[in-house]
Amino acid sequence: MNLLLLFPEDFENDVRAVVDGRRAHHVKRILRAARGDELCVGVVDGRIGTGTIAEDPGRELVLDVRLEHDPPPALPVVLVLALPRPPVLGRVLAAATSFGVKQIVLLHTRRVEKTYWQASALEPEALREKLVLGLEQGRDTVLPTVALQRRFRPFVENELPSLLSGAHGVFAHPLDAAEAARPDRTGTSGTSVGAGHGIELQTPAVVAIGPEGGFLDHEVEHLQAAGMQAVSLGPRALRVETAAAALLGRFRQAALR
Amino acid sequence: MNLLLLFPEDFENDVRAVVDGRRAHHVKRILRAARGDELCVGVVDGRIGTGTIAEDPGRELVLDVRLEHDPPPALPVVLVLALPRPPVLGRVLAAATSFGVKQIVLLHTRRVEKTYWQASALEPEALREKLVLGLEQGRDTVLPTVALQRRFRPFVENELPSLLSGAHGVFAHPLDAAEAARPDRTGTSGTSVGAGHGIELQTPAVVAIGPEGGFLDHEVEHLQAAGMQAVSLGPRALRVETAAAALLGRFRQAALR
Repeated sequence: MNLLLLFPEDFENDVRAVVDGRRAHHVKRILRAARGDELCVGVVDGRIGTGTIAEDPGRELVLDVRLEHDPPPALPVVLVLALPRPPVLGRVLAAATSFGVKQIVLLHTRRVEKTYWQASALEPEALREKLVLGLEQGRDTVLPTVALQRRFRPFVENELPSLLSGAHGVFAHPLDAAEAARPDRTGTSGTSVGAGHGIELQTPAVVAIGPEGGFLDHEVEHLQAAGMQAVSLGPRALRVETAAAALLGRFRQAALR
Repeated sequence: MNLLLLFPEDFENDVRAVVDGRRAHHVKRILRAARGDELCVGVVDGRIGTGTIAEDPGRELVLDVRLEHDPPPALPVVLVLALPRPPVLGRVLAAATSFGVKQIVLLHTRRVEKTYWQASALEPEALREKLVLGLEQGRDTVLPTVALQRRFRPFVENELPSLLSGAHGVFAHPLDAAEAARPDRTGTSGTSVGAGHGIELQTPAVVAIGPEGGFLDHEVEHLQAAGMQAVSLGPRALRVETAAAALLGRFRQAALR
């Protein structure tokens, strides 16, 4: 936790906030902070500043809050993620949030297990918990939105084109050995597929990451028809959370104000 | 598991291998493969090919193995990692291995908790288990080496320079708000620190990733004195495994042969 995220209901008045539960426990037991110590705090969807611990009675933590600056600029990337199994989902949501992604779409594809759509990890409170972890990690306050898209083609045909308006679109696509060995797919430059992408990706962008095992051929065709280009992450298959971090790390981030 | 990794002791003769335990369980229960099915297999530190399930009696799996091609080329990057807590260590080792890293150094820094050096996760068998998971994920066979460096300065002064001979050296360094706001640190190009790094990194390279909270100032000076340059991953603090994937994703990978 690099920032303690506060919510409007935590405030007793303009400058005093009281937190309990996981947050208070973390501050006391993990950060080992006590009365008089200063913490980096932020208000959800608002500003960032300093919270001075005024009291720490029992399970609560009373903070005097001074808000000083805006949160870091958003990373203008929409992450479209084939719904992974719940523990992976949690890690990817937190990691994407820590990169500054503000718009996440969870998508059904052929290789997504249908039972994943019934997981309690998709309930609003469960999603929000993972996003908050990402904000606390990345010292940010602005919660991403998460949209659930249970049908691949309607999303790709009807909604993706407007997301792509004015934006670059890329999707991670593993190269299998045969494909990578085809001379038209591999130049001296390495393993990029498609229109000669370098490592650096341009914002604003839509980034799609398939399920373990990748998108099916006809899904790739639909993505390409909508204007998305394949990018390779090298000759090896990466886990979903690894691929997400590797792709999100390829965007140049705006500096802090 | 995208590749079933076989060891010399699994082979009954040149072409027949018998596996049990985790690997057999995974093939039967997760991949739901049975007699006659073909699996991608590889021999540790050797070639890759196809294993046809000849028999699946009880807990064992009998495979007829045909080796057909070499493993993917290594990523010529030495990963120097401030020792993280054990669960994070396991994830980073597996992820780095799935990228093709073959040389990993676990390093003590001031912010590494000393108790981490007593963790059972550092025993050779425990390390190897995580590396094998990374090979299975990345369809590779060549086990990385893992060196333990319990003293920061002797490593940086005596060993790092030879690792850097002929190689680029970079370390991930979070920018705090004050630092990022300094005009000499932020150009129009974003948040890179140091000698104007772009997003793309060049191999061969040594990549160092600090502990949660980053390297201390004097550690940064020692790294720089040894020839390492700071690179930023943006204005936000990332978790160690996220930062590792983001940096390793910035190297252009050689294509498969």
